[in-house]
Amino acid sequence: MKLGMIGLGKMGSNLVLNLLDHEHEVAAYDVAPAAVEKMKEAGATPTSSIEELVASLEPPRTIWMMVPAGEVTDQVIDTLLPLLQEGDILLDGGNSNYQDSIARGKKLKEKGIHFMDVGTSGGTSGAREGACFMIGGDADTFHRLEPIFRDMAVENGYHYAGESGSGHFLKMVHNGIEYGMMQAIAEGFEVLEKSDFTFDYEKVARVWSNGSVIRSWLMELTESAFAKDPKLDGIHGVMQSSGEGLWTAQTALDLKAVTPVITLSLMMRYRSLEDDTFHGKVVSALRNEFGGHSVVKKD
Amino acid sequence: MKLGMIGLGKMGSNLVLNLLDHEHEVAAYDVAPAAVEKMKEAGATPTSSIEELVASLEPPRTIWMMVPAGEVTDQVIDTLLPLLQEGDILLDGGNSNYQDSIARGKKLKEKGIHFMDVGTSGGTSGAREGACFMIGGDADTFHRLEPIFRDMAVENGYHYAGESGSGHFLKMVHNGIEYGMMQAIAEGFEVLEKSDFTFDYEKVARVWSNGSVIRSWLMELTESAFAKDPKLDGIHGVMQSSGEGLWTAQTALDLKAVTPVITLSLMMRYRSLEDDTFHGKVVSALRNEFGGHSVVKKD
Repeated sequence: MKLGMIGLGKMGSNLVLNLLDHEHEVAAYDVAPAAVEKMKEAGATPTSSIEELVASLEPPRTIWMMVPAGEVTDQVIDTLLPLLQEGDILLDGGNSNYQDSIARGKKLKEKGIHFMDVGTSGGTSGAREGACFMIGGDADTFHRLEPIFRDMAVENGYHYAGESGSGHFLKMVHNGIEYGMMQAIAEGFEVLEKSDFTFDYEKVARVWSNGSVIRSWLMELTESAFAKDPKLDGIHGVMQSSGEGLWTAQTALDLKAVTPVITLSLMMRYRSLEDDTFHGKVVSALRNEFGGHSVVKKD
Repeated sequence: MKLGMIGLGKMGSNLVLNLLDHEHEVAAYDVAPAAVEKMKEAGATPTSSIEELVASLEPPRTIWMMVPAGEVTDQVIDTLLPLLQEGDILLDGGNSNYQDSIARGKKLKEKGIHFMDVGTSGGTSGAREGACFMIGGDADTFHRLEPIFRDMAVENGYHYAGESGSGHFLKMVHNGIEYGMMQAIAEGFEVLEKSDFTFDYEKVARVWSNGSVIRSWLMELTESAFAKDPKLDGIHGVMQSSGEGLWTAQTALDLKAVTPVITLSLMMRYRSLEDDTFHGKVVSALRNEFGGHSVVKKD
């Protein structure tokens, strides 16, 4: 099969290499010419604009977007819209908000373009060697594309979830679960670190990765992290986030779905971004007000 | 190697079968004669009392306890103490509190008996086919026993953590992490269930088990549970607990280790045990007091 890939970052470039491994033809485009050049060396057809990429594909075209969620995705779609024609397929493999995907699906359907929201998991190594796809959109289009998903995913690693938006919804919730699992693992090591015992964290993560109830890919990554830096002395405990955890919490609130652990995991990430907190000042001031407890004064 | 097993429940009996598979000789004892009879049929030496079990082993003996934590473990140790002699090894493979294990290790050391605390994970299937062991106690004794652990564990599935108590400490924290991971997974499915989409939870758990960032044994067990009962209609959402989560939270409080997700996961289990809550009554009454909001009255 021949398809176009727009966005050759860490995920997109690995997906291209994965596709080429399975003898698909790929026309590749990125705003960074160096990224296109790399894919050319790997065997993809290089293109220097979205227009050129579209022109290089025979209708009905299949184009996979792997670009940042939000504005960039909208810009790419706006550029593509006048170039595409009825019957073309556009996939969004990024971390888009599922509500955006539903809206985009509707908008593209008006022009007869099949839009598929494809939640993609497994990290860069998964993109390269076998990913996990959660797929929403119309069933016929899914069946036409299924050979590609089968080639690019690990065994049992793709799932057609149904109507437009359901793929990105699943990916959103997947990431919410990920926040909670990561925080739980991290808190366990916090207890080990504060205890009177002296543990070798790499070895602990290794034994927990082999045969235990909590064995998981995240625990294997924990082992790998401690192998590189036994006490993680080289990094700060600042926990960034990129939207999916927030959306899970927001969606849960809208649905009145009880998700305290996922939500608190997100809050703990936000807490980690601040050196000092305003709520800390308020509690400290109140203790001083009612009990004369000392406060830590600023210099 | 020949050793004794006291406690032939779901874990103990599977560990015996595992040992027999690896051509170790096992003298087996349980308070339930039927459990002993089953192990006899599998090739173990049956014994009808702890005295008989001890008498059937040549000193220095190796005896593995797989009995409920707390009082039962103390009773078994009290029964064993006058029967054992210097150089004998006693392993506690149960879910004992690490502080109890430290105390028991000291008490047994006074008589020259080597006590090893062995946190055991992987469930009944792990006990049967390859478990995960977190081991505390003296290093010489560990090295003498290492061939047994190697035989009974999956590859890289045993870890000598160091001094007495460290094995059960690791198992405690492991279970604390397990509480958080389980709650995070469960909350994700709560969001799916409350959403407007219709998902096949077995298939969702399957795709999340294959190639995703949250792939884990717990997600595979989630798939298995939904395969048996697609919406879990047959069970109530009552979440029991057996001590290790509580101990992790208590230990974290003592150590001032920040573990909100593990602690909240435990609290959510307690919440699930109550049909109604007193805090719910208080909040409802207060809303009525200040704003005249209606309360749900009891019949």
